[in-house]
Amino acid sequence: MAYGFKIQRQVEFSETDMAGIVHFSNMFRYMESVEHAFFRSLGMSIATSKPGAVGWPRVHADLDFKRPLRFEDTVEVELLVREKREKSLVYTIIMRKLNAEPPHEVARGSLAVACILKNPETGAMSSIPIPAHIADLIDVAPDELLEQAKDGLEKK
Amino acid sequence: MAYGFKIQRQVEFSETDMAGIVHFSNMFRYMESVEHAFFRSLGMSIATSKPGAVGWPRVHADLDFKRPLRFEDTVEVELLVREKREKSLVYTIIMRKLNAEPPHEVARGSLAVACILKNPETGAMSSIPIPAHIADLIDVAPDELLEQAKDGLEKK
Amino acid sequence: MAYGFKIQRQVEFSETDMAGIVHFSNMFRYMESVEHAFFRSLGMSIATSKPGAVGWPRVHADLDFKRPLRFEDTVEVELLVREKREKSLVYTIIMRKLNAEPPHEVARGSLAVACILKNPETGAMSSIPIPAHIADLIDVAPDELLEQAKDGLEKK
Amino acid sequence: MAYGFKIQRQVEFSETDMAGIVHFSNMFRYMESVEHAFFRSLGMSIATSKPGAVGWPRVHADLDFKRPLRFEDTVEVELLVREKREKSLVYTIIMRKLNAEPPHEVARGSLAVACILKNPETGAMSSIPIPAHIADLIDVAPDELLEQAKDGLEKK
Repeated sequence: MAYGFKIQRQVEFSETDMAGIVHFSNMFRYMESVEHAFFRSLGMSIATSKPGAVGWPRVHADLDFKRPLRFEDTVEVELLVREKREKSLVYTIIMRKLNAEPPHEVARGSLAVACILKNPETGAMSSIPIPAHIADLIDVAPDELLEQAKDGLEKK
Repeated sequence: MAYGFKIQRQVEFSETDMAGIVHFSNMFRYMESVEHAFFRSLGMSIATSKPGAVGWPRVHADLDFKRPLRFEDTVEVELLVREKREKSLVYTIIMRKLNAEPPHEVARGSLAVACILKNPETGAMSSIPIPAHIADLIDVAPDELLEQAKDGLEKK
Repeated sequence: MAYGFKIQRQVEFSETDMAGIVHFSNMFRYMESVEHAFFRSLGMSIATSKPGAVGWPRVHADLDFKRPLRFEDTVEVELLVREKREKSLVYTIIMRKLNAEPPHEVARGSLAVACILKNPETGAMSSIPIPAHIADLIDVAPDELLEQAKDGLEKK
Repeated sequence: MAYGFKIQRQVEFSETDMAGIVHFSNMFRYMESVEHAFFRSLGMSIATSKPGAVGWPRVHADLDFKRPLRFEDTVEVELLVREKREKSLVYTIIMRKLNAEPPHEVARGSLAVACILKNPETGAMSSIPIPAHIADLIDVAPDELLEQAKDGLEKK
């Protein structure tokens, strides 16, 4: 079982805006990237065309932006499973700029996703319980980690 | 004085993803577009290169996603000023799909922005009070509108 | 029959990059937007989920970038049908900045798209002749227009 | 001296469109990413805020799209320097899908960039000769490589 995952990425030029920093909408893309990497770390793809495969539409996303990210910065994006409900998951997401001395948090927020099944004929989506073979792989992160994550690198 | 603004846009192909719907990160771009249109409606640009011009970095953004948007859908994006603080603004944002009978809400959330001044030499940004010539143009939306907005078109 | 179309759009903040101008990849999105508006002007959508509907994958795209576009600039994007082949279409695309005195060309290029049919079972795509009910609506732009377009507004 | 560079990336969900494949505009972003990685491989950043630093606006970009890329595909993006002129560079760009047996080319094109200097006061950009300390690091790729690249992996 796993309760979290981390990725690193380097800020690309096309992700910046005329203010010289990463456009905030792209940080929601970073948020999604770590979720998809988390699924791969469990041996699954979050989006497959296999018949009967469930889908994971986003139902909520939020971010607090604390410090800017610039071109070629190295950012660590961490996901921690905060809630595991019957039909949905809620993640805490933390982003840190690593090429700083000391590294510091640049953004923090959450992402909630629902488990759905698409009717192959009508295309209609219904919310369903997370299938056991997936739910069994996912755990909720320990409280102290979710708490510790709150102040992250700053405290060190 | 103004406390809100609405724009309409048509979903573009490049805004969709392999699930056949608008990628959620693009809805944060819609959120920003209505803010910029709101500023233009006040006779200003939110981002100018004029010396002494203030900037408006995003400090928080959130959205609840209720129903999907698809290619060529017409979406109304509404901004209502929810809070006007000394050094920041908070907006309520509501998105509605208009090409539906009846139209329905697809997303709702908030955006908080800070007023800053950039030191032209060091590039450092400091939070400052919203200049009077801007603050005087902006009002907080009436409670009943912020409330009514909550349930929006569904109630009709 | 129609051989061209024009749209106008206003540059959005999220389309700019840290150089302060529209990122070149977004101008390829503008290119596609005018094509889709052209299809709508013919009473069609370029992408539908109707059974038997053809698809239009891009096979080539190019742009020469002449002058920059900035936030809130108004850009006219023009499409002219340059070639109408049995199984594909080639467009000339011209972009002009309208909020300049006089307006001037900012980019020019071409887009080639193939007509395909997707096998609903295997997902495999095969190139097919453009269906008559579509081909009959589309004409090649007159030479003098394609030529005149070349120097566009500059010559005036 | 160096005449080329290769990067690998994995297709992200937000890069796909409702056709289930990478949107073509994102492949122009991949094109730029390998150029920036090429510059880093030479010990430089293509975009710095250092006084006197040159800029590299894009003057031309084109791609032929041969085969689709899908979510989680691994793509190799190769840059080869095709022309080194006094004031500009032209690259050949080749993209290959690696998670296929055998790997195959998915796109090929070119990117031309000009060397410019921005007047710090007026913001006006003038085309200038590539500074020697940069030009001395960059070589033109051997003909046989540019040719061989043409048919790439297919010939093997």
